[in-house]
Amino acid sequence: MKAIAVERGEDKPVVIEKPRPEPDAGEALVRTLRVGVDGTDHEVIAGGHGDFPAGEDHLVLGHEAVGVVEDAGDTRLSRGDVVVPTVRRPPNGSNPYFARGEPDMAPEGAYHERGISGAHGFMSEYFTSPEAYLVEVPASVVDVGFLVEPLSVAEKAVELAYASRSSFTWEPESALVLGNGSLGLLTLAMLRDQFDFDRLYCLGRRDRPDPTIDIIEELGATYVDSRATPIDAVADEHEPMDLVFEATGYAPHAFETIEALAPNGVGALLGIPSSWDFEIDGGSLHNDIVLHNKCLFGSVNAGIRHFAEGAAVVEAMPDDLLDHLVTTVTDPENVEPAFEDGDDQIKAIVEFESP
Amino acid sequence: MKAIAVERGEDKPVVIEKPRPEPDAGEALVRTLRVGVDGTDHEVIAGGHGDFPAGEDHLVLGHEAVGVVEDAGDTRLSRGDVVVPTVRRPPNGSNPYFARGEPDMAPEGAYHERGISGAHGFMSEYFTSPEAYLVEVPASVVDVGFLVEPLSVAEKAVELAYASRSSFTWEPESALVLGNGSLGLLTLAMLRDQFDFDRLYCLGRRDRPDPTIDIIEELGATYVDSRATPIDAVADEHEPMDLVFEATGYAPHAFETIEALAPNGVGALLGIPSSWDFEIDGGSLHNDIVLHNKCLFGSVNAGIRHFAEGAAVVEAMPDDLLDHLVTTVTDPENVEPAFEDGDDQIKAIVEFESP
Repeated sequence: MKAIAVERGEDKPVVIEKPRPEPDAGEALVRTLRVGVDGTDHEVIAGGHGDFPAGEDHLVLGHEAVGVVEDAGDTRLSRGDVVVPTVRRPPNGSNPYFARGEPDMAPEGAYHERGISGAHGFMSEYFTSPEAYLVEVPASVVDVGFLVEPLSVAEKAVELAYASRSSFTWEPESALVLGNGSLGLLTLAMLRDQFDFDRLYCLGRRDRPDPTIDIIEELGATYVDSRATPIDAVADEHEPMDLVFEATGYAPHAFETIEALAPNGVGALLGIPSSWDFEIDGGSLHNDIVLHNKCLFGSVNAGIRHFAEGAAVVEAMPDDLLDHLVTTVTDPENVEPAFEDGDDQIKAIVEFESP
Repeated sequence: MKAIAVERGEDKPVVIEKPRPEPDAGEALVRTLRVGVDGTDHEVIAGGHGDFPAGEDHLVLGHEAVGVVEDAGDTRLSRGDVVVPTVRRPPNGSNPYFARGEPDMAPEGAYHERGISGAHGFMSEYFTSPEAYLVEVPASVVDVGFLVEPLSVAEKAVELAYASRSSFTWEPESALVLGNGSLGLLTLAMLRDQFDFDRLYCLGRRDRPDPTIDIIEELGATYVDSRATPIDAVADEHEPMDLVFEATGYAPHAFETIEALAPNGVGALLGIPSSWDFEIDGGSLHNDIVLHNKCLFGSVNAGIRHFAEGAAVVEAMPDDLLDHLVTTVTDPENVEPAFEDGDDQIKAIVEFESP
């Protein structure tokens, strides 16, 4: 079967041939329909993040997938079920994090990430997976099920945000998403659909006309151009934010987030930066976070339950919005356009079979 | 009556004479027994924090007090009840934060702080207070009730810490308190008495023999000398910490806290820094907080319920530990020693009447 992989020493994805996998006991064989590409894939390809499976010189890419059960084996699934695979796998059988449905909370060494680190991904015609790591989604989302994984990551983060404010009365009204990439836009859709924010904002640095600004406004949110209104000016020029959701991975934003927060507000950090030093007004930020009961937390990956929540968001999203989000659909013979990252690109996918 | 105040333009507390206050409807008159001095008092005296009551040129100090009801007025209290006053007051009657017992979550403008900002404190022979802001404590803690207020601040912070980790399974084992001042030591006692940490650590920068190191060890905790083991070396030299409690107010510590945390760990920031710029390895810290699901939050003041929890800690503390904590007891005629801040000072108090 065909698979899209990155090979050791190379910095471009290639099409390779691999044998079709055979499901083990407790596993199903899944026929891949569509696989999304995101910033993590770009980092994996560039060699900045992730790792090859032990003893191998290639890594099959892809961690945002939707497929159809081809062979249910001895699982409780049925042939034809639409499924989204979760990303993390225990390196040796299982461990307590996986046993309780919280693979996202496993520390380093206690997980592989399919398509990212230590295990092959889903960008191939078929893949196998233990039943526990296949989330059934409604057949109605078969064409956009590849959005469930990124949404699961957003769901987990917002759950953590609410938890962090749960020891007192917190009735958030305003939320700012930093970043108008696909994760930022999906998060806006999720915040609008599942949470009670009165006012949503999304920060980017694009000129109109721009397809992401159109989507932001379709979602009823306000576009904030960071070139005119940097994060530390957002509170004055718009309003202090109860929730800030950082999805750019630009490290100074992580700390500037504190300044955009309202008293008792919370900042969720999801973007993954490269490492570098810079100066901050650390005393002021420290003072601000303490005297105004602010919170900042990081969040990675998602628990099993967050996939089902993400599927509900996808189900509620209007079709035209989904059409605008997906800017590139390629077939596995010609994946290059899916890995281009220009200003016109929002979400690119590789389609193995039309849903 | 005598009161200890700071006067506009001065940087030393003075004894002044004021009329004994009369309780209004809903208020009790309290006879002050003992009032503690802390870092906030030093900042208020130096002019770095706080504010005078509107239209006045002096501020009566003191926000850590214990007293006895002298005149219960029309309240449900009784003459002779031992009470600890809370610190925050609504500037105009009431507001929702106070109405629900969460004055600590009120934003700026929605509170005064007695003895700190906008309202006179408790360092006087008598004070009045609405019943709602007087917390009854057991008569057995009458001599050390001035510790209830700082403990309430620690209780609130640890409640926030647990809340922030409540959306997943979190079973913390290790905690590090940064700072061996009185708040740090009280927090250690609280963590030992009320929470299930297996291993406690306290970071300071003192040479042995030292009375605070003795108390740390009496509490079964490990002393970490920050000159030999800076915060970013704690994880390697001791262990990664599930909880870090920052009680120094040294701004770089707020950010270094991230490096001392275990995966899924949480840092509570309580110290209040002065403002200044410094360089951080922001990319690494951002990366660390995201990929390891870490959390950092600030916490100030306390809700009404945290005072009762703090009183329980004081009740459980052994007498000799309390004796070691209180290093200076002065009378109101001669308060200077209570405001000295040398290495031998842990907790200093002004005693208006022997309990």
